[in-house]
Amino acid sequence: MTAQGKIWTAALVVIGDEILSGRTQDANIHQIARWLQVQGIRLVEVRVVADDMGAIADAVNALRASHDYLFTTGGIGPTHDDITVDAVAQALGVAVTIHPEAREMLAAYYEARGLELTEARLRMARVPEGASLIPNRISGAPGIRHGNVFLMAGVPHITAQMLDGLTGQLEGGAPLLTETVGCWVNESEVAEILRAIEAAHEDCQIGSYPFFREGRVGANFVIRSTNAEVLQSAVDTLCEALGEEGHDFTPGGI
Amino acid sequence: MTAQGKIWTAALVVIGDEILSGRTQDANIHQIARWLQVQGIRLVEVRVVADDMGAIADAVNALRASHDYLFTTGGIGPTHDDITVDAVAQALGVAVTIHPEAREMLAAYYEARGLELTEARLRMARVPEGASLIPNRISGAPGIRHGNVFLMAGVPHITAQMLDGLTGQLEGGAPLLTETVGCWVNESEVAEILRAIEAAHEDCQIGSYPFFREGRVGANFVIRSTNAEVLQSAVDTLCEALGEEGHDFTPGGI
Repeated sequence: MTAQGKIWTAALVVIGDEILSGRTQDANIHQIARWLQVQGIRLVEVRVVADDMGAIADAVNALRASHDYLFTTGGIGPTHDDITVDAVAQALGVAVTIHPEAREMLAAYYEARGLELTEARLRMARVPEGASLIPNRISGAPGIRHGNVFLMAGVPHITAQMLDGLTGQLEGGAPLLTETVGCWVNESEVAEILRAIEAAHEDCQIGSYPFFREGRVGANFVIRSTNAEVLQSAVDTLCEALGEEGHDFTPGGI
Repeated sequence: MTAQGKIWTAALVVIGDEILSGRTQDANIHQIARWLQVQGIRLVEVRVVADDMGAIADAVNALRASHDYLFTTGGIGPTHDDITVDAVAQALGVAVTIHPEAREMLAAYYEARGLELTEARLRMARVPEGASLIPNRISGAPGIRHGNVFLMAGVPHITAQMLDGLTGQLEGGAPLLTETVGCWVNESEVAEILRAIEAAHEDCQIGSYPFFREGRVGANFVIRSTNAEVLQSAVDTLCEALGEEGHDFTPGGI
């Protein structure tokens, strides 16, 4: 593979008892996946782990070496259950320190609101030694970057803001292009068509996602490739084959 | 730990390029987490992996030995990208066979709809050798159980139906009980209270989940324990402490 064709990959560790207990529906996997896609970085694996030092450190160490980027969400707030910084520092084999700039950001944020920078709030300035900050205009508490590891908030709209600040800053490859063709068909009827078209197009993947809607069965076929020509050829071939068999299909998806 | 006090654990492998690409927001983690909670089984880890034989098999093998139950979602349909059965069979070191009962279920389902049991549809009767079936009244295609491994659909309402069929059938422990106390407070102001109450109550965990709503900052404190008395004591102590400091709190959560 040439340097130009390098596929950049990322993994995500979601830290959260609240996700595992079913109390909260995670929204960070989805938003980080979409954001990475636009950066030309492929999300390859996600792990959701408990608020547990060992579980977090193990997941971080298992994934940071095998991917270009590792993101975490959750556990960087001011309370006793926010242990992500400690767990990541342990995984990286570095100490935890107060980041002077983070301390200033928090002090300014609370001063502007007539509040004190208490010991609990100062917890949010703790970083694994050697880290830099990812600004967060909403709550004052920054995200944290250490090498290829990015620590983001658990609250989705704060993470959205941190991602916004990182947009265009991470090196990525050619973004994965996708096209969707929707069809009012039971996917099992066209399984062979899909298989054959994928096999005939190198650097191309076809996913089939069935649905039940308006009392009818259908499926969206999502064709993915980093190569625009290959993608278009696969889409054209698929539409032609569906048309020949008399299926009711819609380029762009249903 | 006594047998009575055994904590039953589960892990979940979500198989889906569509989740990792950000195309689809996963809903199975949430519904399986909630369902397991009711069965007295604790979901301890989730991995989202690509539609890739090696990635699926590795995740299944990493998790099935260390947990009482392992669930997978996705990849059990009729198309070429449905490779979960093959990957799990590889992980278990068994062959893939057509399950005669699954074949009958599918034949009856399609016959009732005037449709043929094509080769693609018959793919949905393939199971790792030695498996039993989990009925699915919606689409005819069953879920699959092999030992402590449960293969569920990717489409959430089909998985919901399969979970329904499994309700009460898996051995579990005492369900984790939870109570929520909501408070219009910046969580950093009460961080020390939370830490102290958790420390004073064995077999009790307190999670703090901040939110921004109606232009105000608040947090829900979720107290979890398998012991009802410990739980109640922690809730009472927390409400008392919040009241003493003059905070505006609501038992049951905000």
